[in-house]
Amino acid sequence: MRPVAIVGVGQTPVREHWDAGLRELAVQAVWQALDESGRTSVDVFYVGNMLSGTLTGQEHLATLIAEYAGLAGVEAVKAEAACGSGAAAFRQAMLAVASGAAEVALAVGVEKLTETSTHKTTDGLASAADADYETAMGISFVALNALLMRRYMHEYGYRKADFAAFVEVAHRNAVHNPNAMFRHPVTREQYERAKIVADPVNLLDSSPIADGASAVVLTSLERVKEFPTVPVWVAACEVSTDTIALDNRENPLWLKAAEQSVRKALKNSGLTHRDIQLFELHDAFSIMSALSLEGSGFAEKGEAVKLADEGYFAIDGTLPISTFGGLKARGHPVGATGLYQIVEATLQLRGEAPHSIQIPDARTAMAQNIGGSGATIITTILTKERL
Amino acid sequence: MRPVAIVGVGQTPVREHWDAGLRELAVQAVWQALDESGRTSVDVFYVGNMLSGTLTGQEHLATLIAEYAGLAGVEAVKAEAACGSGAAAFRQAMLAVASGAAEVALAVGVEKLTETSTHKTTDGLASAADADYETAMGISFVALNALLMRRYMHEYGYRKADFAAFVEVAHRNAVHNPNAMFRHPVTREQYERAKIVADPVNLLDSSPIADGASAVVLTSLERVKEFPTVPVWVAACEVSTDTIALDNRENPLWLKAAEQSVRKALKNSGLTHRDIQLFELHDAFSIMSALSLEGSGFAEKGEAVKLADEGYFAIDGTLPISTFGGLKARGHPVGATGLYQIVEATLQLRGEAPHSIQIPDARTAMAQNIGGSGATIITTILTKERL
Repeated sequence: MRPVAIVGVGQTPVREHWDAGLRELAVQAVWQALDESGRTSVDVFYVGNMLSGTLTGQEHLATLIAEYAGLAGVEAVKAEAACGSGAAAFRQAMLAVASGAAEVALAVGVEKLTETSTHKTTDGLASAADADYETAMGISFVALNALLMRRYMHEYGYRKADFAAFVEVAHRNAVHNPNAMFRHPVTREQYERAKIVADPVNLLDSSPIADGASAVVLTSLERVKEFPTVPVWVAACEVSTDTIALDNRENPLWLKAAEQSVRKALKNSGLTHRDIQLFELHDAFSIMSALSLEGSGFAEKGEAVKLADEGYFAIDGTLPISTFGGLKARGHPVGATGLYQIVEATLQLRGEAPHSIQIPDARTAMAQNIGGSGATIITTILTKERL
Repeated sequence: MRPVAIVGVGQTPVREHWDAGLRELAVQAVWQALDESGRTSVDVFYVGNMLSGTLTGQEHLATLIAEYAGLAGVEAVKAEAACGSGAAAFRQAMLAVASGAAEVALAVGVEKLTETSTHKTTDGLASAADADYETAMGISFVALNALLMRRYMHEYGYRKADFAAFVEVAHRNAVHNPNAMFRHPVTREQYERAKIVADPVNLLDSSPIADGASAVVLTSLERVKEFPTVPVWVAACEVSTDTIALDNRENPLWLKAAEQSVRKALKNSGLTHRDIQLFELHDAFSIMSALSLEGSGFAEKGEAVKLADEGYFAIDGTLPISTFGGLKARGHPVGATGLYQIVEATLQLRGEAPHSIQIPDARTAMAQNIGGSGATIITTILTKERL
């Protein structure tokens, strides 16, 4: 495979964008990424999106967005892997360049969740679970995470309040990210008083439904010198899957797909856990942060919550997570989320993060995008120097 | 890019499968393809599908199907490009092998259209058009094709009855395909008497809504000797796009994406139009056959209908089309269609087509899968010998 670099990024603020539809949001991110990379065209165009068909009656999204971005004619395909769709699109763009089929590829993630009723959006999000064996029983995604959180508390002896650190960290970092949805800190007291959504998951455990788009331009080693930006290298991007339904897993608290995708990513890049300086994880719910850290090998089983409480994952901790606010505070426009993570990691490695959340001398970052309750996990390692 | 070969195929009959859901259909095709190739695992798994989210509340389809096929853990992603989703999945699988990221890849297309009301399915299919500027006006896909057919008749002076040959050819070939939905011939008289759906498109101009799944296993040149099947080579697989909405096109009768994808495919394979011995085209409507043939360079503008009438595209004609019945008579399970075409072309090149529809000494075949009204077009060239 040919080495692949990120040479342009773009993102819209994560908001309830009442003034912009799917195509307008996507085009904003695409144009930013193209502008940065000094390009007006690409060879291939991937869109990550989960719910455009269900919520806005628009499939065929990649071709539509390509046209509205002024790229009509370009090869265009949509990639879908539930909330992992953004990184799935990134993976396809990387493969297109790595194979030699394309010299310049663009991946954009976009989602518009606020144009319809919350009820319809909740139903739509539930389509990431098993429609016949989970959703048909009436379970929603919050409920699935509530089951996991309750089980985790039971197995490892935690109280609900112990999860506060994940929320504190995310909100503290988001204050400095102009694109974040919630730019206010959250205190332990606020966390403990927050309304329950599905016991024990409360409102502050849950990432907000939101609209947004995020994009990257990729190119090959051979062409990277033609671009005005400082390249960031894709050391690895690996996809692993697990059973869709939680009840089919031997141990529902163990994200096997996190373990496997991280193992593959480290192996293929020749890096170790110690090399990872920051981790953009998929904190759709607080419990997912804990499970992702443990499955990925950054904490022992049952230890992630304790480490969080000790400040291990804070911006000045041993392994900063959610440095731009994560899904929790930057927001979670599902099909775009994986590309927000990659854009944020890229900004860290370029040294272009806002001062207060810039990781000093960042050279290696990991991003992990999760579809469903850990059924699809895509782990990406980016580096400042080419390995 | 590394050479890539097809080493296993599978398909379900195209039917109203009341006894099988999405996952069961897909798994049938996957297992057939795996059995043929003598494998129980693959490195990467792509699913082509358009409407699982909208019609059955199931997104995250690739991971779900991988699990039910016994492949939990494998890299899995869904590709969507409206009715072009099947070939879009094939393209991704090919890139994964060509890049070296995978040695063995599987692409399966699946669609389940008959489990809901026809009204909902028609709405779903319309999501391949521009939701804001076409569908919002109340237009359906049959109506869009009616506009194109009317315009074609006006521009080139045809009568409605002149299109009969496309329908006759498809139905005549389908008689010999056990997987086809409609295995009965259609006469000119039947065509002329068929009920109008959207004037001038009648029932026999329209391909049937159906359920089905179709799959292929791909591998690299390096590994091809490990497989028991006779390999068929992917000489090219190219994607081009156009505007989504018909009214944005300079000439709505010219499928620019067909022209471009065919040009790229011929260039990359070093072949010419004369080398193509059969053409699995996207005859979702009779008018689409004509436009596809002309855009692809197999007929002059306005000449395809005349050539069809002269028997040019019959099974014993100069360029046989829809050799297994095409979308018209084999049936059109939208996200699976592109892979049915590729499976059928593979069978032709292996010499394994049923006797009456086997193209003698077939060495080179083209398949063309279309999303929307020609907005995404994926042209694949397969060859018996590696070029």
